[in-house]
Amino acid sequence: MLTRSSNHTLTEQLAERFAERIRSRLLPAGTRLPSVRECARQQGVSAYTVVAAYDQLQAQGLVEARSQRGFFVRDFVQNGVQAQEGQAQAAIQNVAGVALRAATGTGSLPSGSRINATALIRGMFHQASTHPQPGAGVFPSDWLETGFMAAAVRKVTGSRALQEGSLQYGDPMGDPGLRQVLARKLAGLGIPARAGQIMTTVGATHALDIVSRTLLRPGDPVMVEEPGWSVEFARLDALGMRILPVPRHADGPDLAVMARYCEAHAPKLFVSVSVFHNPTGYCLSPGSAHQVLQLAQQHNFHVVEDDTYSHIAPEHATRLTVLDGLRRTIYVSGFAKILAPNWRVGYLAAPPDLVERLLDTKLLSTLTTPSILEKALALCIDQGQLRRHAARMRLRLAQARARSVQLALEAGCSFAAEPAGLFGWVETGVDTDVLAQRMLDEGYLLAPGALFHASRQPCTLMRINFTTTQDAAFWRVLQRVVAQSR
Amino acid sequence: MLTRSSNHTLTEQLAERFAERIRSRLLPAGTRLPSVRECARQQGVSAYTVVAAYDQLQAQGLVEARSQRGFFVRDFVQNGVQAQEGQAQAAIQNVAGVALRAATGTGSLPSGSRINATALIRGMFHQASTHPQPGAGVFPSDWLETGFMAAAVRKVTGSRALQEGSLQYGDPMGDPGLRQVLARKLAGLGIPARAGQIMTTVGATHALDIVSRTLLRPGDPVMVEEPGWSVEFARLDALGMRILPVPRHADGPDLAVMARYCEAHAPKLFVSVSVFHNPTGYCLSPGSAHQVLQLAQQHNFHVVEDDTYSHIAPEHATRLTVLDGLRRTIYVSGFAKILAPNWRVGYLAAPPDLVERLLDTKLLSTLTTPSILEKALALCIDQGQLRRHAARMRLRLAQARARSVQLALEAGCSFAAEPAGLFGWVETGVDTDVLAQRMLDEGYLLAPGALFHASRQPCTLMRINFTTTQDAAFWRVLQRVVAQSR
Repeated sequence: MLTRSSNHTLTEQLAERFAERIRSRLLPAGTRLPSVRECARQQGVSAYTVVAAYDQLQAQGLVEARSQRGFFVRDFVQNGVQAQEGQAQAAIQNVAGVALRAATGTGSLPSGSRINATALIRGMFHQASTHPQPGAGVFPSDWLETGFMAAAVRKVTGSRALQEGSLQYGDPMGDPGLRQVLARKLAGLGIPARAGQIMTTVGATHALDIVSRTLLRPGDPVMVEEPGWSVEFARLDALGMRILPVPRHADGPDLAVMARYCEAHAPKLFVSVSVFHNPTGYCLSPGSAHQVLQLAQQHNFHVVEDDTYSHIAPEHATRLTVLDGLRRTIYVSGFAKILAPNWRVGYLAAPPDLVERLLDTKLLSTLTTPSILEKALALCIDQGQLRRHAARMRLRLAQARARSVQLALEAGCSFAAEPAGLFGWVETGVDTDVLAQRMLDEGYLLAPGALFHASRQPCTLMRINFTTTQDAAFWRVLQRVVAQSR
Repeated sequence: MLTRSSNHTLTEQLAERFAERIRSRLLPAGTRLPSVRECARQQGVSAYTVVAAYDQLQAQGLVEARSQRGFFVRDFVQNGVQAQEGQAQAAIQNVAGVALRAATGTGSLPSGSRINATALIRGMFHQASTHPQPGAGVFPSDWLETGFMAAAVRKVTGSRALQEGSLQYGDPMGDPGLRQVLARKLAGLGIPARAGQIMTTVGATHALDIVSRTLLRPGDPVMVEEPGWSVEFARLDALGMRILPVPRHADGPDLAVMARYCEAHAPKLFVSVSVFHNPTGYCLSPGSAHQVLQLAQQHNFHVVEDDTYSHIAPEHATRLTVLDGLRRTIYVSGFAKILAPNWRVGYLAAPPDLVERLLDTKLLSTLTTPSILEKALALCIDQGQLRRHAARMRLRLAQARARSVQLALEAGCSFAAEPAGLFGWVETGVDTDVLAQRMLDEGYLLAPGALFHASRQPCTLMRINFTTTQDAAFWRVLQRVVAQSR
């Protein structure tokens, strides 16, 4: 909130709030700022203050006035060496999400103010306020605190172990000890992976990146669940792939749509989150899994199963890689959701005939991965500490989910999918892109539903994180802002 | 060497030697094994032993007999789920190097037995024998041993620091403390980079990957120095870029060729190693640097300067980023050559207008990077320990270089470029692809000259590492094998 008691004038505070959002691209280039009158009303300040703030932003080169039309966010790339300005802009949008480009059709700038994928990720990193962020994709850091992590790190950073783990590039497949431990862990899930089929990566993100770069060439068609995690859309688009969005239902992907894509486009890969699908929380049914694999067999495509939420999932959950036995499926997971997001340890398990090719791509992208953290993680898993920690987290999450669901319902929201896992897929009844901008004024970062779609139509859904929506105050503010947005 | 005193028969030893090379792709798919008679002569065993070994390889599915033509290495991908076999093979070759494809023209299998880029990298990781490897790209690990590294790690892994550095994703740009330290380090070189222009990466490899993915779209033309590090060719090819090789001379890149490329193809990027160029050891002259930048200005392309060998270079060396002041140049470097290869800490410094786009690509590829190792590195640099260590390494390298050069000359080799830096560019007088295969039999991994070219013509040059060619025994073996190869 703007405050008169601050060391900065209201004008400065207002200008800085807009500047911050423009720099972090929560207000992308081309966005029109609210009219002076509207802004004054929203912020409870005088029109004079708003005009002065907009002037400051213009002086800073962040916005430009267009006659009769108001103030627009400038594309700050255009001031650089890029002469082919349109291309540079298109590139930004490509990176930031296929969503934007699809919505605007021609690669021209988006006219609405939308939160894009990378802005949301950045929001996950540095808190805009002291509130827990409902749009966050991870557990709050105080949930992740454990004593065993530090003990494991101490063990692997003794002088001798440290030298051995630092002075050579290390095994390109990843620390052999960790891969042994992971092989046992996967066996426990029913996935038959030898250590030789397991490769470590810089988080699950890197694993997904390696899989797409190995199995696809630019221009290749690839099926991705929709709604789905927009970073996946953005990455595939940035790599030049053709995205074929497959509607995700409660049981699994829409098989009829997949079959049509197979006939028409012969896609080479299907990217899927079977368990606690992001953003819906859906879990794949065994029947659906079987049919997906039959389709894959028939049309000869690979499947990459992103099991990021593995640690908070029940062990009996249906996984494609279990049914398939890693023949045409690749398993991807990591530890950012359960232990140490910054360690960036992820991994994949692949069919034997793909391992060499995936390793080549890893070599071309990062050579190897830091083995010290991999060794520490192996200790945490091997001694059962991570498993016990995960069990406690599941319990705590269940309690948080119950409370969050109750607050959401009391605030007049409903759930578009049965609440499960870390995220809730919430119906608000209003355009959540607009809602997200307004909630930013209140200090809350939301994850609007349009973010999870390949083609960016207006959407009244949003994703909430059950662990960061425990506070009744958030829901009161949301209810008020929703009412104002109708 | 094959030995009769082993627990394994000569047949088993010979079969295993070939199997190992096939699996590691030092013998790529399609390679013809030596004739039985030739192999028997080379290995000093009976024809019966060779026939039995080849039979074992055939039974293992690693080679196939083609009537009247001998035994050929099979493509082990073809046994997998890939029905579009040709495509899978092509993909492997793409990853392993544009070189192979360019040489064979049609994407058919290479007929010669050539060591490819990724096989060479793998050779850097696991020693095939106890010999130091002349083809290695790094310093021997005992050269890298320091006491200060362990002390730095202890400091940043105290319980409190560890929690802080682990439980959140961390700053997507990289550890702020390290970026401050790097800004000062770059200022010392004459590169005006604020911390906000510096982004950490998973080694310099990742930085180069991020730069190409950000500035280029599939199909875009890109200029790369030739000879040059083949992983760069392989990565750009795997990303679908069009590679324009620019001959590298002692003074710098061939400006006439660059000018022609600019007219004909309007390339968007030039990838260059200014200081201690790999493999030649050339350093860019100030005049040449000025002309490259003029061309970049005139034709509006970016330049990425790979300064991997920064720590063993004199501080007054000419760098494009210094002349340009990071306006259309991007600086890339890392610490694998001087401190801890497995920590995988690299970084880039970019013009302000590119930073956001580069960060988006980093987010899509690995989200963030592990900050614990970045913090430890910051301590090593900030306290001047790394600088003193590098000074000692330069001295030791100069001594090793002198000895290695003398041994090479005595062995009848000459230098195609004035010896400098870590690598020598050595004229052998025979095809170094053939030489490399024969030296493998002796337990030595070479880096044949063809590896450093975008189009893979036979080449009589090879790259040696001055630190791993100190042993007169290696040069005696080389001299003998060269004589046999004439």
